[in-house]
Amino acid sequence: MGGRSKAAPAGGLRRVIIEGVEPEIDGGQFPIKRTIGEPVVVEANIFTDGHDAICAFLLYRNERHRTWTEVEMTALANDRWRASFEVDRLGTYCYTLLAFHDPIKTWRRDLLKRVQASQDVSVDLLIGAELLDKAATHAHQTSTVELTEWAALLRSDVSADERALAVLDERATFLDCTYAGREYATHYGKELAVTVDRERARFSTWYEMFPRSASPVPGRHGTFADVEKHLPYIANMGFDVLYMPPIHPIGSTYRKGKNNTLTPETDDSGSPWGIGSAEGGHKAIHSELGTFEDFHQLVARASNYGIEIALDIAFQVSPDHPYVKEHPEWFRYRPDGTIQYAENPPKKYQDIYPFDFASEDWWRLWQELESIIEFWIEHGIRIFRVDNPHTKALPFWEWLIANIKQDYPEVIFLSEAFTRPHPMYRLAKIGFTQSYTYFAWRNLKWELEQYFEELTQSDVVEYFRPNLWPNTPDILTGMLQTGGRPAFMMRYVLAATLGASCGIYGPAFELLEHSPREAKSEEYLHSEKYQLRDWKLDDPASLSEFIGRVNTIRKDNVALQFDRTLQFYKIDNEQIIAYSKYSDDPANLILVVVNLDVHNTQSGWIELPLRELGIPGDAPFEVYDVLADARYKWSGAWNYVELNPHVVPAHIFRIERDPAIAHELPEPITS
Amino acid sequence: MGGRSKAAPAGGLRRVIIEGVEPEIDGGQFPIKRTIGEPVVVEANIFTDGHDAICAFLLYRNERHRTWTEVEMTALANDRWRASFEVDRLGTYCYTLLAFHDPIKTWRRDLLKRVQASQDVSVDLLIGAELLDKAATHAHQTSTVELTEWAALLRSDVSADERALAVLDERATFLDCTYAGREYATHYGKELAVTVDRERARFSTWYEMFPRSASPVPGRHGTFADVEKHLPYIANMGFDVLYMPPIHPIGSTYRKGKNNTLTPETDDSGSPWGIGSAEGGHKAIHSELGTFEDFHQLVARASNYGIEIALDIAFQVSPDHPYVKEHPEWFRYRPDGTIQYAENPPKKYQDIYPFDFASEDWWRLWQELESIIEFWIEHGIRIFRVDNPHTKALPFWEWLIANIKQDYPEVIFLSEAFTRPHPMYRLAKIGFTQSYTYFAWRNLKWELEQYFEELTQSDVVEYFRPNLWPNTPDILTGMLQTGGRPAFMMRYVLAATLGASCGIYGPAFELLEHSPREAKSEEYLHSEKYQLRDWKLDDPASLSEFIGRVNTIRKDNVALQFDRTLQFYKIDNEQIIAYSKYSDDPANLILVVVNLDVHNTQSGWIELPLRELGIPGDAPFEVYDVLADARYKWSGAWNYVELNPHVVPAHIFRIERDPAIAHELPEPITS
Repeated sequence: MGGRSKAAPAGGLRRVIIEGVEPEIDGGQFPIKRTIGEPVVVEANIFTDGHDAICAFLLYRNERHRTWTEVEMTALANDRWRASFEVDRLGTYCYTLLAFHDPIKTWRRDLLKRVQASQDVSVDLLIGAELLDKAATHAHQTSTVELTEWAALLRSDVSADERALAVLDERATFLDCTYAGREYATHYGKELAVTVDRERARFSTWYEMFPRSASPVPGRHGTFADVEKHLPYIANMGFDVLYMPPIHPIGSTYRKGKNNTLTPETDDSGSPWGIGSAEGGHKAIHSELGTFEDFHQLVARASNYGIEIALDIAFQVSPDHPYVKEHPEWFRYRPDGTIQYAENPPKKYQDIYPFDFASEDWWRLWQELESIIEFWIEHGIRIFRVDNPHTKALPFWEWLIANIKQDYPEVIFLSEAFTRPHPMYRLAKIGFTQSYTYFAWRNLKWELEQYFEELTQSDVVEYFRPNLWPNTPDILTGMLQTGGRPAFMMRYVLAATLGASCGIYGPAFELLEHSPREAKSEEYLHSEKYQLRDWKLDDPASLSEFIGRVNTIRKDNVALQFDRTLQFYKIDNEQIIAYSKYSDDPANLILVVVNLDVHNTQSGWIELPLRELGIPGDAPFEVYDVLADARYKWSGAWNYVELNPHVVPAHIFRIERDPAIAHELPEPITS
Repeated sequence: MGGRSKAAPAGGLRRVIIEGVEPEIDGGQFPIKRTIGEPVVVEANIFTDGHDAICAFLLYRNERHRTWTEVEMTALANDRWRASFEVDRLGTYCYTLLAFHDPIKTWRRDLLKRVQASQDVSVDLLIGAELLDKAATHAHQTSTVELTEWAALLRSDVSADERALAVLDERATFLDCTYAGREYATHYGKELAVTVDRERARFSTWYEMFPRSASPVPGRHGTFADVEKHLPYIANMGFDVLYMPPIHPIGSTYRKGKNNTLTPETDDSGSPWGIGSAEGGHKAIHSELGTFEDFHQLVARASNYGIEIALDIAFQVSPDHPYVKEHPEWFRYRPDGTIQYAENPPKKYQDIYPFDFASEDWWRLWQELESIIEFWIEHGIRIFRVDNPHTKALPFWEWLIANIKQDYPEVIFLSEAFTRPHPMYRLAKIGFTQSYTYFAWRNLKWELEQYFEELTQSDVVEYFRPNLWPNTPDILTGMLQTGGRPAFMMRYVLAATLGASCGIYGPAFELLEHSPREAKSEEYLHSEKYQLRDWKLDDPASLSEFIGRVNTIRKDNVALQFDRTLQFYKIDNEQIIAYSKYSDDPANLILVVVNLDVHNTQSGWIELPLRELGIPGDAPFEVYDVLADARYKWSGAWNYVELNPHVVPAHIFRIERDPAIAHELPEPITS
């Protein structure tokens, strides 16, 4: 607001408006996310008063460079403009916009209209000469000569018609004079940021296992060396991240017994999340798992299989953790002199002390916690699955992740927050690379469609990368408890095709483990959180081969490695869900059809928007089910599908699009 | 982003997040609009890590005050919080938010859960004592004593049960200690603004007329004194703003003849928008209309009828305007020495010179233009209809309106921009009080529903106040050209009930003037823009009585004086549109049903959401058509309507709601 001052307001001549910029998260407070090689497509409303022609530029730069690269924007309909750039380097990119009246563009556009209306343009040609002369004074030296020559031509005694034709020629070289008018350019006031991650941040397939259950000898504590022997098995299933729950010494005070009882046997191994004992804390390895040498070897061998080890970061301690004695100021004391254990009243978790993020010594606490991440980075880890980040101070994570990524932009943080939507999204905004989701509990067609449209078709897609898990050690859903083998297959196909990133907690998953600790509980019976388990990996009922097939399809089809192009289709049966993803490869359109009914064969007619998909409507076309290796001839928009859950509950079709008409697809913003 | 510095980041202990604040226009760049007495309902997502209880406050202040008033916010579902305040003074209000962990609230909430679970709370009572003692050190003196007494009670030897009961009592006086935890409050980083206007900015009924046609003697130039004689007529129709096209001297160079011809007769009066002659410019009165004294008298007499005079502000000049000689620097010269006239190539408007807003002397130009507004304010005018603001520099309007409203917050500016959506909305954002719309061209049910949902159900409603005109001197729509009397009645009912502000260009409208200058043109034949007209106001076909009835209904029903509560209803006939508006008076629900077919009687079944509307579903209810003064008994959700356009094309029902169930309505944000 102006006030009553009589000083000339700044920007009185900056007449172009830039607004409605997308993507822009919370007014530019947070970066959007991309992976290397992805485009950033930027749109904005750009307009001005009157009829002047506008030049608009998208400006971008890598954070480490000072100079901006300019991309000329294209006008779409209704004052909407668009341009894009590609990010090809880890770290942060910035982008902003710039637009101005271009008097030469305006003049030439109007000249054309006058010529078409057979008006006398002799004065207009002289106006053009003046504009080009003026532009010459701002131009680079070579352009100056050229512009002056054009101005001379416009003033020459050649006929007005000929002069007009010359400057209206599309090859007229003065057209690149985009600096004309720039002195009064409107600069979009904000520099917006892009966090650029490596590909695995966007496309990853996770396998979670408890290393202590990896022993081939029932009852013997598993080791890193045992885990090594599982690597071919895990690689054959197509996983590229192996995530292990905490590998640190486990406390004994208030240790939980099997099935989360408060009365442990002396040989009970305790929860890996009860971190810390006299042996050490977050920077130590539980001795029964092996040594640091063993750990390094596991990391290296996994790498040979294309598998990266992810560690669990649980910022909490057991009562026996060295911090409790060394840093009593990081915990909250009760008036009776005891330390405040974790609580969600009336529930009590006496085996866990939370850090007090309101501690007066909070700053040293933050630094120590950061040093834990750095410690494991030094030991070769670049992926961290963060336990319950929503119960620690959010400003801490924002600081921590920014700080770590400053030096190690390749690090991936997965947020394990199962809480309300706003805190989950906020964690993603403040830096988490990937996030757990509500997927496990979305079973009905409308629930899945609504949730995944929110995740992929709103601006959530710009900062929140879903990682879909049908199960975790904490989550054995009712669907898996009761749905049998069809449920496990169906839920994995959904996870693996709805999400570019997905994961399972195995071997419980592929071995169809489905007994809950008690009715209505989502806890596993004999949960590995509290005891070792002995898994029969060669069980003929295992889904490992099926999972491997699905994951191979994910690797072979770029369409499944992005979330943005997800689109649901109409099908006349509420028990069948159908959706597609595409990439910029015209041949790579993937259509997934899943029977959500785990008991009965379901069939229906699916409607495809043929034109939009780039499928010629006048001839039959082939759809190839890459899951079943079967080919079908389809024809027209409506086609019949039928799925028996007891055989395979899903089709994953690859459809050949006609490249000639595929350009009618909405511009892919995926690769 | 943090960088790699090891300095403690600011705000590390400020753990509450405030985001998703509404209303907030373009990240807080522009104010929202309200009128005196209206509430500002503010919502935000407010949450924190973990389980701590939150205290949240909405803070507001009048711009002229330094101190904030605080309103405690209420938690809705899913981390959404709400509070509101009322604006009771013209000018600008500011609002922002503040939220923090409240340890006392957290402690008491958890204590309740523990007591309910029959846990031992003796230590918890001592924790409470510590918290209250701590709060006492921050509190006002009287509270300090009280808090200390409560702490003492918590430490006393009264039984734990009794102490717990005492502090869990809802009347416990320490509950107002909302300052506990405040030292680490999160402040929402922005101060958002509210422009507070007078009621007429929101609810106004405009009548446009050319004063030069007001003469009772055909062919004689009308005067302000003649206009005075029309005041009872205009007041009887229920209009409260009388808007006159420019009243300044009219240029003669390139003057347009009747019907916009280039060959005027010597006695042609010219377009009032061709402003300026040797007699004077924007600060002069066309002598044939009268003197300044006459003008003052008209303004005063109109006021006696509850009518306010609105003037036209057209910032352009005729070639004869004194500015052309006095300020040649405000115009653009062509190489042949002529001044650049207005153009939209290939169209030329030689009778109009636009100001050059890119002039080097732009700042003095701005100041001169501002002085024109001030001049007419000094002559008693507080409403300006601004001609084509979208063809003048937008930064100019932003500066001008802010500057004027600083001293005269009661001034109303109506934006006459018929252009693309973004520039129209931008003009509203940068300060225009009301705006013309696309209403005149929205004829089909889906068009009207879609457009008015955009205007009233999106954040557009926060800054853009539509003023609906079925016609203007420039706009004689095809619908009015061909639809006959039913079209005029139907379009006026729509304008007057869809919009809290509306207007007509009369007497052309009420006298059903409908001949275009030529086929496919929206220009009037014998347009008053270029000649005097002689109107037969006593024509028995006149709609003046009907318009008066509709405008009385607008005055009597607060529901129609706001736009926010507009809601469309299902009706099984595409030719009938139905919608309601309500206010916070439970009895005032207005339901409008309009037949959009100007030829045939149409009927259909309308579905009302009874519960939502506060109508008991189990008994018949009465609907009272205030337009026809007719009563109907309706019953259930579906009811029959039938409208003959040749009688009256609309129902305007008032429905009595049951106040006992009316609270189930969405909270009215209208009054």
